[in-house]
Amino acid sequence: MSPEHFTPVPLDKAYRLLNHGPTVLVSARHEGEHNVMAAAWACALDFAPPKVTVVLDKATRTRVLVEGSGLLALQLPTAGQAAMTVALGTDSAMTMPDKLLRHQVALFEAPGFDLPLVEGCAAWLVCKLIPEPHNQQTYDLFIAEVVAAWADERVFRDGHWEFDSAPAELRTLHYVAGGQFFAIGESISVK
Amino acid sequence: MSPEHFTPVPLDKAYRLLNHGPTVLVSARHEGEHNVMAAAWACALDFAPPKVTVVLDKATRTRVLVEGSGLLALQLPTAGQAAMTVALGTDSAMTMPDKLLRHQVALFEAPGFDLPLVEGCAAWLVCKLIPEPHNQQTYDLFIAEVVAAWADERVFRDGHWEFDSAPAELRTLHYVAGGQFFAIGESISVK
Repeated sequence: MSPEHFTPVPLDKAYRLLNHGPTVLVSARHEGEHNVMAAAWACALDFAPPKVTVVLDKATRTRVLVEGSGLLALQLPTAGQAAMTVALGTDSAMTMPDKLLRHQVALFEAPGFDLPLVEGCAAWLVCKLIPEPHNQQTYDLFIAEVVAAWADERVFRDGHWEFDSAPAELRTLHYVAGGQFFAIGESISVK
Repeated sequence: MSPEHFTPVPLDKAYRLLNHGPTVLVSARHEGEHNVMAAAWACALDFAPPKVTVVLDKATRTRVLVEGSGLLALQLPTAGQAAMTVALGTDSAMTMPDKLLRHQVALFEAPGFDLPLVEGCAAWLVCKLIPEPHNQQTYDLFIAEVVAAWADERVFRDGHWEFDSAPAELRTLHYVAGGQFFAIGESISVK
């Protein structure tokens, strides 16, 4: 069952979920094994069809699962999930096979896909890998097409982020280094 | 002459300038012609040597200059530059050859490079293109190595963003769509 507030985002608005540069959690499943890692280097690449880039280091277990299944989810952790996000970016399933349990990461199934999503995020994008072996091998750079998207309707609805009317702990996280993030801040509109 | 507060950033800290997902201004010069455009899709790609990705649409004049010279600058506009950033992302030198004059974009020379930088930004990264014709042609995706970096010492010093102690108009901008940005917000540190 999907969590409360989990609401579809039209694909033509999906780029707006990543446009402001949030840190993401990457989840993947292959042959019954799943994992989740944090990644600061994810970015929109195209509008229609929506595409994304994400950097997945060769040392990560999640990368192996993405390469195996061709499917991944990018999801936007919230200010309230900062500690979990650091933990998922620091500990590897390579050396800590039970890292998701240890860090109490609650998962649910992506509707229509064999892919686990992380509860409590601000938004979720299911992506199909566009294989580019040279980029993957040389730069750890993965390109994928967004095939489904959802957001927590309290922070993103009708194609717009609405952080001002939502609790502060639902703001997206923007990682710097050494366990330090910024939450996204005030809206500025140019007329 | 470089502007006040323009301070070198060591290359091993340069990724921190982009890590939190700011919108950038891209500048380039080739055969005496220069231009500046806005780009929301720029991202760190590697730590050492620092590399970046940036998406440059085929309709832009700046892309032609980058392809000609192999050199580009990414610079981080501030909250106070929101209107200029929208203007530089909306108007093209293809149809408005005097767009930099019209939008009162003040430039200075990058020390040691034949490249104009935009005054008043929060940080500047000079990058050398790593030619990847397939990425450029298929995805409008450019990869470059950061070869020099500077920041306004009021907001970034000793390798750290220090927005809390600086004026609000110096915060970085994070574009969504339709002239709407978020400024970067509160710092969150996980111990």
